[in-house]
Amino acid sequence: MNRKPDDGTDIALYPIGTIHTPFAEAVGTPIQGALSGQARGEVVVNSALGEGLADLDGFSHIILIYLFDRITKARLKVKPYLDTEHRGIFATRSPSRPNPIGITVVRLIEIDGLILRVSGVDMLDGTPLLDIKPSIPQFDDHQHRRCGWFEPHLEALRDGQTVPVADDRFHRKNNK
Amino acid sequence: MNRKPDDGTDIALYPIGTIHTPFAEAVGTPIQGALSGQARGEVVVNSALGEGLADLDGFSHIILIYLFDRITKARLKVKPYLDTEHRGIFATRSPSRPNPIGITVVRLIEIDGLILRVSGVDMLDGTPLLDIKPSIPQFDDHQHRRCGWFEPHLEALRDGQTVPVADDRFHRKNNK
Repeated sequence: MNRKPDDGTDIALYPIGTIHTPFAEAVGTPIQGALSGQARGEVVVNSALGEGLADLDGFSHIILIYLFDRITKARLKVKPYLDTEHRGIFATRSPSRPNPIGITVVRLIEIDGLILRVSGVDMLDGTPLLDIKPSIPQFDDHQHRRCGWFEPHLEALRDGQTVPVADDRFHRKNNK
Repeated sequence: MNRKPDDGTDIALYPIGTIHTPFAEAVGTPIQGALSGQARGEVVVNSALGEGLADLDGFSHIILIYLFDRITKARLKVKPYLDTEHRGIFATRSPSRPNPIGITVVRLIEIDGLILRVSGVDMLDGTPLLDIKPSIPQFDDHQHRRCGWFEPHLEALRDGQTVPVADDRFHRKNNK
């Protein structure tokens, strides 16, 4: 399917900065920041918005909202990370979404002017930033979660079993 | 400031559905879903995307990404929920953001065709939906978080003190 309908219902957003990471291409890029652990990155915020970064340095973790800008097609079913079956796109964190918006919670190491140094990045180098929010446990963490198809993989992560932090999904996608 | 620059760097997204809540206007709308507790809502997904909802019913909590569609101006400093000082917009969850994107983790009660019944909503009735993602603790929860200016309020929430779940921010904003 095409990524979006051509019916005039566009919502116009714009890049408020750029996320720099060690990941130049999708192959080898970690699937989620929590799994990439110490992968460091730099978020460079547009100079016109610098004032909006005040008080952010008090937070140890921040939510980056960004665009999967190298995704051109949406899929409604995908075979997700760690799984063998096709799943509904909204039950996965796959980038091939109708609106290709990604979110990752990263650790904020320091702020140097317009540059945020962070760890736990899982996005491609040059990813357009859409928003930054403080991560607040009382708002964002919820107990007693069931995680559907992801449950068995969750157990593996809990048990410290070795799981791949990246696969070749993007690669396959690009070559299709 | 205007919400976005007019320099051709627009990113076009589109509404993939609509979020219905009991909150017809901003006054009285809870600030965060985790604080609104049992406030129920319905997410109605566009029929063309129904296939993408497969497997979502296995998740007890989902992340709604949506547009603060009644925000017309961005601010770089705001006086946030519970606080008395102006803070940088990116250190708050205020809706008056350069890109007015909101995220809320809600509990998924049931899926009935294209309708998701959820609790813990904190957005206005008729809010345009941009994305749905499964909430997965290993990806989204992080320990040892410092929460800057929000810390004292966090303690109040932990201690079960009575805190307002809504304020009149929006109201003040609209009347300015």
